[in-house]
Amino acid sequence: MLCVSAVADSRLLAGGARGAAALRPLVATVLDALADGARERSGPLPRGGPAAVAERVGAVVRGAHVGGGVLPEEGVGADAALAALVGLVAEGAADPADPLCAAHLHCPPLAVAAAADLAASALNPSMDSWDQAPAASELEALTCVALAELVFGARVESGRTADALVTTGGTESNQLGVLLAREAHGTGVRLVCGENAHHSVHRAAWLLGLAPPEVVPAPRGVLDPVALDGVLAGGSVAGGSGRALVVATAGTTDAGAVDPLSEVADVAARHGARLHVDAAYGGPLLFSDVLRPVLAGLERADSVTLDLHKLGWQPVAAGLFAVPDGAALRPLDHRAEYLNADDDTEAGLPDLLGRSLRTTRRPDVLKVAVTLRALGRRGLAELVEQTCGAARELAGLVAADPAWELWAEPELSTVLFRPAGRADGGGDDGCADGGGDGAVAEVRRRLLAEGRAVLGRASLDGRLWWKVTLLNPQVRRGELVALLELVRGALAACAPPGPRGAHGAVPA
Amino acid sequence: MLCVSAVADSRLLAGGARGAAALRPLVATVLDALADGARERSGPLPRGGPAAVAERVGAVVRGAHVGGGVLPEEGVGADAALAALVGLVAEGAADPADPLCAAHLHCPPLAVAAAADLAASALNPSMDSWDQAPAASELEALTCVALAELVFGARVESGRTADALVTTGGTESNQLGVLLAREAHGTGVRLVCGENAHHSVHRAAWLLGLAPPEVVPAPRGVLDPVALDGVLAGGSVAGGSGRALVVATAGTTDAGAVDPLSEVADVAARHGARLHVDAAYGGPLLFSDVLRPVLAGLERADSVTLDLHKLGWQPVAAGLFAVPDGAALRPLDHRAEYLNADDDTEAGLPDLLGRSLRTTRRPDVLKVAVTLRALGRRGLAELVEQTCGAARELAGLVAADPAWELWAEPELSTVLFRPAGRADGGGDDGCADGGGDGAVAEVRRRLLAEGRAVLGRASLDGRLWWKVTLLNPQVRRGELVALLELVRGALAACAPPGPRGAHGAVPA
Repeated sequence: MLCVSAVADSRLLAGGARGAAALRPLVATVLDALADGARERSGPLPRGGPAAVAERVGAVVRGAHVGGGVLPEEGVGADAALAALVGLVAEGAADPADPLCAAHLHCPPLAVAAAADLAASALNPSMDSWDQAPAASELEALTCVALAELVFGARVESGRTADALVTTGGTESNQLGVLLAREAHGTGVRLVCGENAHHSVHRAAWLLGLAPPEVVPAPRGVLDPVALDGVLAGGSVAGGSGRALVVATAGTTDAGAVDPLSEVADVAARHGARLHVDAAYGGPLLFSDVLRPVLAGLERADSVTLDLHKLGWQPVAAGLFAVPDGAALRPLDHRAEYLNADDDTEAGLPDLLGRSLRTTRRPDVLKVAVTLRALGRRGLAELVEQTCGAARELAGLVAADPAWELWAEPELSTVLFRPAGRADGGGDDGCADGGGDGAVAEVRRRLLAEGRAVLGRASLDGRLWWKVTLLNPQVRRGELVALLELVRGALAACAPPGPRGAHGAVPA
Repeated sequence: MLCVSAVADSRLLAGGARGAAALRPLVATVLDALADGARERSGPLPRGGPAAVAERVGAVVRGAHVGGGVLPEEGVGADAALAALVGLVAEGAADPADPLCAAHLHCPPLAVAAAADLAASALNPSMDSWDQAPAASELEALTCVALAELVFGARVESGRTADALVTTGGTESNQLGVLLAREAHGTGVRLVCGENAHHSVHRAAWLLGLAPPEVVPAPRGVLDPVALDGVLAGGSVAGGSGRALVVATAGTTDAGAVDPLSEVADVAARHGARLHVDAAYGGPLLFSDVLRPVLAGLERADSVTLDLHKLGWQPVAAGLFAVPDGAALRPLDHRAEYLNADDDTEAGLPDLLGRSLRTTRRPDVLKVAVTLRALGRRGLAELVEQTCGAARELAGLVAADPAWELWAEPELSTVLFRPAGRADGGGDDGCADGGGDGAVAEVRRRLLAEGRAVLGRASLDGRLWWKVTLLNPQVRRGELVALLELVRGALAACAPPGPRGAHGAVPA
């Protein structure tokens, strides 16, 4: 009763002839809240760690409105709700557009992609039947073929057309790779992956009711083809059918390492095994003439995972699952009378249900298609090259400083380092170990809690490393220097007072 | 070279201190393109059917830009790309905000929800670790508990806290219900569902490596508890373990019918079976004091599917999977060193990886939380009541007209009807059958092809029906009358000339 006029704006629809007019003032409120939130945060993430963030969120959610809580009895209206909650989430974000937010494969989206995504939300096409998404489904079909051809090349001469499905990300794409192998070879299929493979490969096996993957050693973070050959030559540990799926990785989550794809493809071919390559991270190097050779052999895979919400600068989700021949996707075909009745399909209505394991599905392809057109292949190539170049620059800074040990020259855009002169791993005694694993973990958490930097972590070679995953093409040398200084300062503050002094084990 | 300045805008980021400023002009372009597209379409969907839409999409994608195609060599810049492709998808949309677009559970999103979704895209939190989504993950936790309590009530006294996971929709939520049953009872678990259950229950069984569900008759579209009792009392057809999961439906896709949940819960309890209720469609009746009784018994389920992208007016996706005790979700727990290392979890960083089968995950909760706060429980209740009221109004119009046969009074917001006086089913001879199944299918396709209406279809009782799924709370009586007149006209035009005349078998 109190706020009838305020609440009226909350019932307007985003679509139809009047949708844009309804959206205009609300979107203005959102943009203001985003700007205010970024200003209030004034750093890569909010200060105070989980407890402080939970307190601020709780306070806003309880609010001063009637009823309080997440679901009040009476609404406060669209404008007030947007200002409060968008502001809250913006102020409390870990913002990947900040150069000091560099832990994960968590990219800062391009404004053009985020703007396109608004249209997806407003129009709300659902990609499970043509009559919910006429133009969007056609745009998806064309875009999927174009991206699959980027991976596999155009193979029109052999009568095959590369194709891709849009997924929620690498996890779903890897699951599809495993699922197609299961459908081809039965539940006895052997899964074989490197110890560097993404956790989603193991989760897919569990989900799909298969034996756990057989794990091949990955010394220095990449799959060893000789070891792979040995595993494939040996019997199935799990008593499977003997037909195998090899999963290789082009861009590991830990180190951005790329498995030797050509050699892996050779080994797989020799054993008659299928090959799925998880190129969620590394795949977009295909845009670049300079960097494409890093992925040589990718085109020999039976299926490929590719995420454009990593090196592709899309808002989540923009996953793809690509195959060299669209016919390989047929095991996903599925019928539901209300969505793709036989007589409708015969009458020419496209059958979309086999293009996903989901039913209702957002048109994530729109932002992707807009981005490809806005930037072109060369524009995307430049962003990929700038980002990988920044990683090489950071690695150079690390290598030049005796305080740090660099894991390896980056192949993609991940840089791993740790305090030099501490060969031992395994300790988890926080700062007390001065520069060992405990301190690496603790420095990361302190920088997080202080709202100063978002660093990642990786366990490799039995030791814990700081992980900097650079996905911001705009990052500059000065910001990389500042990041290292932050870590140096936090490590010094972390080290316990004592004979080693304020710098702990870190050489000055 | 040609368009350096035009392309510069395509590299701006949506986040950071300057993100809002970068978004502002691009969002203005999107809103203009949405308005222009709706005007050009001037109806519920584009004219000409799949071939015409494909031709228009192809023409725009080929475009006049250098290189042409989905992925041109050189980009055209953000503004030009947005104008071209958002305009294309808007003009070629099946717009659920149009009252004559009423085939599917495909809702017109609220402007407030679509605006909030822009913030999700711009900030790009990823919900798989706290350090990618500090405030967003906390907001999700609070919102999930509140919605789960809407389903199950607050049961603090018993030491349990209801909880929910955010999913991509009913398909994923149903899959989670089946997965938890598999984890509890092993791969021999018996799945038992009505013949009215959603196709995703069958697909989940296939995906998860289980025997197909045993199907219980659903005369008149709802699960028969007596028949269910008989199936559960009998042995497992598939040789399973005997422990069963019963899947009931609160709002079928075909007719919006609600299974007798209390009786089904009684039967399941008698046999020690778990109960999952797919309330993807009907669940939001819980917001309404008037309509909540339709769902009596829902709170006795072991798990519940709920979609707020149906009666909840969210852009896709806004799925939920709710359980009466959050501890039931533990089988989904999962570890990945880089996302939830033990020492990080012990140090207080929230562990989010078990809250989804996905890894990277968009904060779909933001738009939901904003909508709940903007409208309040009562605001949402009114929208649900208006929508269900419109369905009763349409059913009244159908029932009052001797030209039509009404399937049943709507329980939710779906109305099924067909030409009266044609008891026979099975024919698929298009218009030639004058008013039988073939004509029903053909009229639907004609209205689609002419861009005049988006009607659904359902096979029930051996006959084909037109399906009107009303999800637009703003629909008015006059528009419902117009919809029926469109169908009447198309049926008359469809009927073959001959002894029965232009009206075929339809009584005048």
